[in-house]
Amino acid sequence: MLVVQKYGGSSVANAERIFNVAGRIAEAYDAGNDVVVILSAQGDTTDDLIEKAKEINPNASRREMDMLLSTGEQQSVALMAMALNKMGYRAISLNAMQVGIDTTSAYSNAKIKTISTGRLMSELERKNIVVVTGFQGINKYEDITTLGRGGSDTSAVAIAAALGADLCEIYTDVDGVFTADPRVVKDARKLDEISYNEMAELASLGAKVLHTRSVELAQKYKVELVVRSSLSRDPGTVVKEETTVEKMLVSGVASDKDIARITIEGIADQPGKAFEVFSLLERKNISVDIIIQSIGRDHTNDISFTISKGDLQQTMELLEKNNHIIGAKKISYDDNVAKVSIVGAGMATHPGVARLMFEALYDAGVNIGMISTSEIKISVLIDKKDVENALVAIHDKFNLATQSMRKN
Amino acid sequence: MLVVQKYGGSSVANAERIFNVAGRIAEAYDAGNDVVVILSAQGDTTDDLIEKAKEINPNASRREMDMLLSTGEQQSVALMAMALNKMGYRAISLNAMQVGIDTTSAYSNAKIKTISTGRLMSELERKNIVVVTGFQGINKYEDITTLGRGGSDTSAVAIAAALGADLCEIYTDVDGVFTADPRVVKDARKLDEISYNEMAELASLGAKVLHTRSVELAQKYKVELVVRSSLSRDPGTVVKEETTVEKMLVSGVASDKDIARITIEGIADQPGKAFEVFSLLERKNISVDIIIQSIGRDHTNDISFTISKGDLQQTMELLEKNNHIIGAKKISYDDNVAKVSIVGAGMATHPGVARLMFEALYDAGVNIGMISTSEIKISVLIDKKDVENALVAIHDKFNLATQSMRKN
Repeated sequence: MLVVQKYGGSSVANAERIFNVAGRIAEAYDAGNDVVVILSAQGDTTDDLIEKAKEINPNASRREMDMLLSTGEQQSVALMAMALNKMGYRAISLNAMQVGIDTTSAYSNAKIKTISTGRLMSELERKNIVVVTGFQGINKYEDITTLGRGGSDTSAVAIAAALGADLCEIYTDVDGVFTADPRVVKDARKLDEISYNEMAELASLGAKVLHTRSVELAQKYKVELVVRSSLSRDPGTVVKEETTVEKMLVSGVASDKDIARITIEGIADQPGKAFEVFSLLERKNISVDIIIQSIGRDHTNDISFTISKGDLQQTMELLEKNNHIIGAKKISYDDNVAKVSIVGAGMATHPGVARLMFEALYDAGVNIGMISTSEIKISVLIDKKDVENALVAIHDKFNLATQSMRKN
Repeated sequence: MLVVQKYGGSSVANAERIFNVAGRIAEAYDAGNDVVVILSAQGDTTDDLIEKAKEINPNASRREMDMLLSTGEQQSVALMAMALNKMGYRAISLNAMQVGIDTTSAYSNAKIKTISTGRLMSELERKNIVVVTGFQGINKYEDITTLGRGGSDTSAVAIAAALGADLCEIYTDVDGVFTADPRVVKDARKLDEISYNEMAELASLGAKVLHTRSVELAQKYKVELVVRSSLSRDPGTVVKEETTVEKMLVSGVASDKDIARITIEGIADQPGKAFEVFSLLERKNISVDIIIQSIGRDHTNDISFTISKGDLQQTMELLEKNNHIIGAKKISYDDNVAKVSIVGAGMATHPGVARLMFEALYDAGVNIGMISTSEIKISVLIDKKDVENALVAIHDKFNLATQSMRKN
């Protein structure tokens, strides 16, 4: 078998943990597998480098940030190869340029386009364990790019897809994918299986267990994905096609506090005004999530939308600078909001799900701001202080601790 | 003008020093020059990474060490580009792979073979200040190599040669090249000029101001080299062809404590015995410096030679393991020795120089062990505790503080 394993930064934070992970890798190799390992930067390395950069230039270009941050993973892979060598195993470290991981040119948020398999295959043929830098790639200018926070998951899935790996294991510090964050909801239950679609929604809604794009890639290339702990023997959660997964009404509940709401009031009720706002944001690569447009007074419209908190300052500046085009009476923001979402492949054909969720929130005394729905999820915007209450109330209402209501 | 500047690790050790250096770079750019900057890793970064590796695997492969250590320079160049950007200058950082610095495959001690100028030139044409990682290159396997301690000097000279730069400035924390180490010999004098040959000898004899190979490259490609301080306005020392440098009898005195002497006693007096010893060492890439062979008792020979202290353990193991071939009666070592040398392009035709040097040592009560001479240098092996006395005595004897005795 060809197995791809990915270990996060906390799993390789120091020499002891590196040897713990090296032991897991060696097991897979000793079982007769070809093994490719993807690593993140050690512990707080990335944050430390960001601090260092900020001290010099708080507005450092994304290109130079990627050049700087990519060194973290390169250190991890070299140290892991040394640890495996020390244990008597053949191993070699490779960075993104050596592998040939080609990405789009968007620094700090690049997408993998293609992966060359030549070097990887020849190292595997030499019976090397191949240890590859996660989180990074190379763009058409031969510059280093990074894939965004959590991007190492995507590196692992993309490499598994390129190599036609039999299995892609994502190692983390929890036992798998849970019905809710176990640190908040005490009786949250680990799922044995979940569908790609549900996992993708959960990931994009704030469940930090997997990078959203990694799930999309896994689905597209039919990579069998397992999320499991590097600290336990739990078999983890298998992420796979819906057809083979029980369709659950609600498979999990997630929250995201890293968002802010922007409200633009009193825009002229003319076609194209909303378009102008969102094309402004798109040009700056700012992702907009929930959008609500409502009719205000005097033939004007109000638009509210949510963005990631990290984009707040830039978005406000952009809107204010361009208000001579937008023509809004008032532009304001609220960063005391959070998003709580439920995800389930079965809810599409079951109209009662939204009602149950709202009932749970009402019972818990939580006010709902904006609402957004898709085929398999419902998100609501609430006050940030209510998040824990909301998660517990919803988790209880749908009996997620014991079993999910199922739908064929 | 096209100017290449190299700054060492202590010059970029923290944010404040990075901005100090950025100021020097900006000056050169504002004066209308194209500027390429070569940087070492910040402060103790390289030593810290070596420590980290040792904790995991004291015998880490040189390939993985190079993979690890090369991250230090990549961090420096990204941070410097950020600092220059912050000051309003266009700048871009490049690593060895991006520039295309091709080296031999010898990890940890590679030699530069060729440098591609395409990317460098196109960035200069865009009016960017180009900040390049020193100390590293890429070999034919697309693996990262490093050039040995001090290798950033060589990176700078090689890039200056490849680009046909008008000037290559090596910035350090002293004002230039001195007649002796100013920390030991208080009245050591800064030289305004020195020839490539003399500088190469001084560098290889332990004067830490320049990497030996950088001087050889500068001479070969006629790169005008200046050694100067990043902390002062002193014009520094110009290193150039002998024809334009005043031929000094003695231009400087240097010492090297990082050596050990090995003595092999009682080898059979047969042709090829010495050859066997040195070819053993050569196969392991161990450099031998001073060699003396003398006739021992009973038709046997004794061989003494000096090596770098870092190679001592490996050399002793190697010799003992192969003594069934060498057939020595005794193999011993002494690491309490040091080498003191004088260098001067004028001494070749002036027989009194050696006598003056020995006289100085005699007056200072310093015993001489081995002696080695070349056209432009004389080295003696002495007891390590006598180094400071020897340096001062020789420096005085040749009046290096005020003027050198000159020879046409």
